[in-house]
Amino acid sequence: MKKINIGLLGFGTVGQGTYKILTENKELIANRHNIEFNIKKILVSNVNKKRNVDVDASFLTTNADEIINDNDIDIVVELLGGIEPAYTYISNAIKNNKHIVTANKAVIANKSLELSALKNTYNKQIGVEACVAGGIPIINAITTALSGNEFISIKGILNGTTNYILTQMDEAGLDYKTALKQTQELGYAEADPTADVEGIDAANKLSILIELGFNKYVHPDNIDTIGISSITKKDIQKANKNNEKIKLIASVENNNGKLEYNVKPISLPNNHPLAMVKGAFNGIFVTGNAVGELMFQGAGAGSLPTGSAVVGDIIAIAKTI
Amino acid sequence: MKKINIGLLGFGTVGQGTYKILTENKELIANRHNIEFNIKKILVSNVNKKRNVDVDASFLTTNADEIINDNDIDIVVELLGGIEPAYTYISNAIKNNKHIVTANKAVIANKSLELSALKNTYNKQIGVEACVAGGIPIINAITTALSGNEFISIKGILNGTTNYILTQMDEAGLDYKTALKQTQELGYAEADPTADVEGIDAANKLSILIELGFNKYVHPDNIDTIGISSITKKDIQKANKNNEKIKLIASVENNNGKLEYNVKPISLPNNHPLAMVKGAFNGIFVTGNAVGELMFQGAGAGSLPTGSAVVGDIIAIAKTI
Repeated sequence: MKKINIGLLGFGTVGQGTYKILTENKELIANRHNIEFNIKKILVSNVNKKRNVDVDASFLTTNADEIINDNDIDIVVELLGGIEPAYTYISNAIKNNKHIVTANKAVIANKSLELSALKNTYNKQIGVEACVAGGIPIINAITTALSGNEFISIKGILNGTTNYILTQMDEAGLDYKTALKQTQELGYAEADPTADVEGIDAANKLSILIELGFNKYVHPDNIDTIGISSITKKDIQKANKNNEKIKLIASVENNNGKLEYNVKPISLPNNHPLAMVKGAFNGIFVTGNAVGELMFQGAGAGSLPTGSAVVGDIIAIAKTI
Repeated sequence: MKKINIGLLGFGTVGQGTYKILTENKELIANRHNIEFNIKKILVSNVNKKRNVDVDASFLTTNADEIINDNDIDIVVELLGGIEPAYTYISNAIKNNKHIVTANKAVIANKSLELSALKNTYNKQIGVEACVAGGIPIINAITTALSGNEFISIKGILNGTTNYILTQMDEAGLDYKTALKQTQELGYAEADPTADVEGIDAANKLSILIELGFNKYVHPDNIDTIGISSITKKDIQKANKNNEKIKLIASVENNNGKLEYNVKPISLPNNHPLAMVKGAFNGIFVTGNAVGELMFQGAGAGSLPTGSAVVGDIIAIAKTI
């Protein structure tokens, strides 16, 4: 049986989900893929913090170098979020001959060119499935099974927080501020919700989809982005009157050779597949010149769903080692 | 650039779709994957038959050996349907050192054990994405991106013909016989519709999903299968009164370690994602212990959608050559 050692950078929601899956499904994964995964070390900010999963303190470290410089570690899983220090850690890990799996859309979207150059130089892989739409295997689909298609468009609800807020405004008749507050209380929105509600998170994910689906890198700052913070109760009522739902849609479209992309709230007919995506779920509508229209729907965030995508990438890379 | 030679066994709906995609998207595929695909030879039953795609007669043959015994052909794409002669051709091609891609669920479901043994002996791959749900990348999803999950259940509308008939009965108020006749006139159902309407086609596809998702081979004859031929106008009306839709569901479920599977018509609440799958479309609802609930929807048949899946498998295998 192949043995693969893993180092985790970060042990928050997704890190703990990844740990749980690799631990609880260990035997199933070993039987299915003939690979045994060992989590050798986990970078945390505080070794003594109480956590939902039970990990012996000897596996924890506050020093990233203990993972990045460990010659026995094959795959470094970066789950810190944000651009720095994630970018430095990923770069150094690649230079130290490690493959990367990450759920960090910000660093991938903002540093794609640099990271692509680096992984090509060192002949390493970077798995990014978990960066877009959590557990929905959209990256895998567009880069493998659908990769004989010329894509016409990819349109998605890529941010669960804003979709939850919009669903609450629609179904409970709340105004934006009340819905946001409720979403924060439930833990679906962060204390500073800017990246979600202003569409920045969705733009990061769209940048990744544009690059992988249309072979063109667009920095997220160059994607026209409008969030949901100015959507009013009145807007929602008007949409309802027209049998429509307002959704924050990240969209890229090949319009006769001209690539058009943006993130903005759109009023969709109630029977559009994306209008039916409710709560914290994500949905992606892909149109290819061969496959036609495909719809994917599922959990776009959360510990185990995003961990599922991380583990899928870990397995895929491990198979090539 | 890597050059890969392909032989097609069969040049009907899916064969012509595959040909069109590999021809029309040739440059895009070459740029994306750095692989140039050449269709070297195509097995047909009649060289002079009029076809929708324009192929020089020199590429056509009525002798399968010209493909199976050609040392320059890397991948044999089997699109004949049925168990024989497909099984013999696939076996001989593997023995002649060729990888296989197929859209033929009957041969895969009925001869899975024999073909698995053969491909392992000769260290060859068999791509089966196109066997289940046409263009929907469900095989790829469950065997790669989701393969860290223990699957709880996979439930799907896997046969577009029966879904089209049921949709017509529901929306146009037709009885079964009239809806079937109309579906045959549109070309969605064959002259002998038995394999579709009695659930045999769906059972073949379910057998493949059970094996790949739950690591257990179940011969399609051992799957309890009820088709739609005894569904009456009254059944549909009763479902409508209960806000439900009758759908032919192929289902496999891990019920506390006991695997339960069958194909049968089920009355689903109108708001169930599978109840919303209309016409000739397919839909698949996957529940994994990490990813939670995922829904896939798209064209489950047709020349280009199924061709999209075939080409996805061709590309995936070519990357490993």
